[in-house]
Amino acid sequence: MEIKVLKNVMMKNNAIGGDNRWRLKQSKVFSLNMVSSPGAGKTTLLKHTLGRLTRNHKVAVIEGDLYTSKDALALEQFDIPLIQINTEGGCHLDARMISTAMDNIDLESTEILFIENVGNLVCPASFDLGEDKMVLLYPITEGDDKPSKYATMFQKADLVIINKVDIAPYLNVSPEKAAEEVRKINPDCEILTLSATKMETLDGWFEWIEKEFSLKSQE
Amino acid sequence: MEIKVLKNVMMKNNAIGGDNRWRLKQSKVFSLNMVSSPGAGKTTLLKHTLGRLTRNHKVAVIEGDLYTSKDALALEQFDIPLIQINTEGGCHLDARMISTAMDNIDLESTEILFIENVGNLVCPASFDLGEDKMVLLYPITEGDDKPSKYATMFQKADLVIINKVDIAPYLNVSPEKAAEEVRKINPDCEILTLSATKMETLDGWFEWIEKEFSLKSQE
Repeated sequence: MEIKVLKNVMMKNNAIGGDNRWRLKQSKVFSLNMVSSPGAGKTTLLKHTLGRLTRNHKVAVIEGDLYTSKDALALEQFDIPLIQINTEGGCHLDARMISTAMDNIDLESTEILFIENVGNLVCPASFDLGEDKMVLLYPITEGDDKPSKYATMFQKADLVIINKVDIAPYLNVSPEKAAEEVRKINPDCEILTLSATKMETLDGWFEWIEKEFSLKSQE
Repeated sequence: MEIKVLKNVMMKNNAIGGDNRWRLKQSKVFSLNMVSSPGAGKTTLLKHTLGRLTRNHKVAVIEGDLYTSKDALALEQFDIPLIQINTEGGCHLDARMISTAMDNIDLESTEILFIENVGNLVCPASFDLGEDKMVLLYPITEGDDKPSKYATMFQKADLVIINKVDIAPYLNVSPEKAAEEVRKINPDCEILTLSATKMETLDGWFEWIEKEFSLKSQE
């Protein structure tokens, strides 16, 4: 009984996710679902990313959070469409939330849409939002053994960003080992290593976005 | 419909949690539910804690993890009852899992039971396992603004341990600010500040366990 209901919920989510994907494709919007544990650096990375990308791209952001608008407030300096979703304790964003948020964004005037998911390394893996790419931030401060422990999320990621590597020397961890562990779980994803607080380490990330945006535009 | 089923599931969980609590009380076992984000240091703290407590207490451990036995293997040096629960992707431990695990532990020969939950700062908050105390590990490496963002978990915690404070000088974070943020969400919980990797910072934690174990024994 419980499993049956859960299946229905998931099928419905995935159907709406499919609708979202179609709408985004029609409007030629490149979309990214940013996932991670709490405090992994999603908002910090997004802040630096908007500073760079808004120079020559039309960007919109959907912020997911359990209760607060802290992450949206951290981005309010940017003159872009910015939608805050509060899940009221819910552990993930779902496709319907994104559909409703998209109703409030002029997709025709948007090139790149960032969706910052709830900080949770388990549940968001099961909910397709209709995004083009899932980007997983993995801070090395969590230890270099996490991929096999949270395998579902790592398997679904298109890009894994090993973050906070400037802190690695002060911890008993290795970004290289972390990358190897990611590879064991997901041999096909791309991997970047950076520190979201250090602008000079973000070139690879910006290049990845431009490459993927360009590929999407040619579809 | 969906909400109704969820309520039933929660009621059933809480009923079994109540049974667990009764069994633990009958056997005079002091039990702790250790919760946190991924990579917060639960296993590291547990390892050092077992090294100390097994000298003069009979300790048992239930390890929760999505897929692997890594955390249990990290503790295999200790000659204690150690049960690994794999949730197979599930985002939290529930009371039935703990009930089954307890069937495999001689509770009459146990004084202190540690339950290490799945690394997730959202979902475990909703599932009473029957434990005496919920202990939340909050690594300062996640930033000092997390309590209001993950309020449900912080509200339920009896003890919040601000961990990895030895790394704070290398980050733009303040353990004092983190403690203030915890207080705003949960004025009644106790707060400890330590580094789970540094044995010399753990005295307050050991004293807290002894105090609570002693109080439980007098019930």
